Amino acid sequence: MTGQLPESVVAYLKRVASLVDGYIYAKVKGEPKEVYDAGLHLIRAGGKRLRPAIVVAIAEALGEPAERALPFAAAVELVHNFTLIHDDIMDRDEFRRGVPTVHKVWGEPLAITAGDLLFAKAFETLTDALDKGIPPDRVARATRVLSRASAVIAEGQAMDLMFEEEDEVSIDEYLIMIYKKTGALFEASAVLGGLVATGDDATLEKLAEFGKNLGIAFQIRDDILGIVGKEEELGKPVYSDIREGKKTLPIIYALRNLEDEDREKLVMVLGNREASREELEQAAKLVVASGAIDYAESKAREYIDRALEALRGAVPENNYRRILEELAKFVATRTW
Amino acid sequence: MTGQLPESVVAYLKRVASLVDGYIYAKVKGEPKEVYDAGLHLIRAGGKRLRPAIVVAIAEALGEPAERALPFAAAVELVHNFTLIHDDIMDRDEFRRGVPTVHKVWGEPLAITAGDLLFAKAFETLTDALDKGIPPDRVARATRVLSRASAVIAEGQAMDLMFEEEDEVSIDEYLIMIYKKTGALFEASAVLGGLVATGDDATLEKLAEFGKNLGIAFQIRDDILGIVGKEEELGKPVYSDIREGKKTLPIIYALRNLEDEDREKLVMVLGNREASREELEQAAKLVVASGAIDYAESKAREYIDRALEALRGAVPENNYRRILEELAKFVATRTW
Repeated sequence: MTGQLPESVVAYLKRVASLVDGYIYAKVKGEPKEVYDAGLHLIRAGGKRLRPAIVVAIAEALGEPAERALPFAAAVELVHNFTLIHDDIMDRDEFRRGVPTVHKVWGEPLAITAGDLLFAKAFETLTDALDKGIPPDRVARATRVLSRASAVIAEGQAMDLMFEEEDEVSIDEYLIMIYKKTGALFEASAVLGGLVATGDDATLEKLAEFGKNLGIAFQIRDDILGIVGKEEELGKPVYSDIREGKKTLPIIYALRNLEDEDREKLVMVLGNREASREELEQAAKLVVASGAIDYAESKAREYIDRALEALRGAVPENNYRRILEELAKFVATRTW
Repeated sequence: MTGQLPESVVAYLKRVASLVDGYIYAKVKGEPKEVYDAGLHLIRAGGKRLRPAIVVAIAEALGEPAERALPFAAAVELVHNFTLIHDDIMDRDEFRRGVPTVHKVWGEPLAITAGDLLFAKAFETLTDALDKGIPPDRVARATRVLSRASAVIAEGQAMDLMFEEEDEVSIDEYLIMIYKKTGALFEASAVLGGLVATGDDATLEKLAEFGKNLGIAFQIRDDILGIVGKEEELGKPVYSDIREGKKTLPIIYALRNLEDEDREKLVMVLGNREASREELEQAAKLVVASGAIDYAESKAREYIDRALEALRGAVPENNYRRILEELAKFVATRTW
């Protein structure tokens, strides 16, 4: 972890990771062992546990103990990891979190099944909130929130796949896609954190606004790191967005703002799975030269500002809110 | 539909199909259209809607209107169809319900995503029971039941995949696998039907017993039809179990009971994806000659008897129970 995050926040993330991982390992086990190992592979490999941290920090900011938030926190992390396993198959990605992807180790059939298993376990874990004394109406509402978010994620993944085949994608279309693919689960995480403590609609709506904007900023930053990130910090190959022809914000901006000749050079490499490392590096340089990174960074800051404003309307000022504020700032500037 | 089923039951299945399909089409829609079309492809192609019929008939047998059972009925059908889409990818099956499989039409990435979408929509639909006046504690309990069943289905699918690589699978291992892969969703369907009406543990346990045994019998019959079924009745190629090296009950029985020479002939064809139609037919004849079909049919009848006994302990004698009894008998003798 890096100096971009205050030590107190780093310690908080570690505490949440330890609680949530323990909870997941206790809940997600069974036979056959192979499919559970495949399902837990990426969770064991690391990850920041940002989504569970949002759930737990919001619950704590609203006066609930972390322990009570664990079923919801584990559920969002399980949904996240299920999407990673399936996305890696579809994108033919071979590394993530510094390890080979699930389908590279266990093959595609077992990887598809391991993703399905985590998805099922997410909803099973959600209902464990009943045993933590969370009222059934809030548990049923949490099921509705997480299942709707999961459907929206599938819509976003479908858009992402379809964009690969399209020459022109507008910034508006991109923003809808990343809201669906990434923003929706951050939004659900924030609402689930709220549902640990309250069923108050006004609070939950502001939390939704916080999570949604945070998630969009997170994805914009992810797309920036896809151009200027460092492999050793990210734990996965850079430039895969370029090789797969992903229509990310920096790439859309560059396609619209580069001069004809440079634009042509970029188009030649985009979506070319045979492109050499040198061609990919040249393409990334063209994206940077277009001013796309500055543009995307300012967009990410806009969304973070909106997220922070919503957060301040949803939870009282306290230590946990400060942690959430620091996390939000980190999301827009992170290098990993 | 055939003379194996009394007209009253045929009419009941048609009524449930019409209600459930209407409910699903109203609930499962959105953008991008492609992923919704892919998700609904097999539902539009047909199917018996046996699982929703179990949900609705049990609810009606316990005195609830069919309308109130629709969210749970739609949810189990959506889970069923999600598993079909993913299983067809893993098994490389090309036809089902008389149409090309989802991945053959839309490609594997969109097919994986369409399956995930249906899975999410299943849990979203489940929570619509709140709007039908089903108490939140029973909706939360239904979420727990369906999510646990979905996890068990993934375990069963993993076992099925792993069995393809194994030479020897015992009948006990087979029975555990088909309980997980098929029985668990029938079990959940029966319990969800009960939860429309009641939270009484004793009733729900007997309904679980009914559904579980019915599902096991259903799968044994499916495995019989994999050897002696007719393509035009099934809507999918026969002999795919042999070609894929599936360890089904008739195949396990034949491997244990054929003389050395015939056994060797069967082993040569099992799991050989290049096997000719003639070789597959010869292998199927060897399975029949071993007595495997008679053995499997008697096993299926045993499970149906257990299912009927549990049903009679769970719901009062009435028209809906008679329909469930007829459905159970059909399951063990069906040719489609």
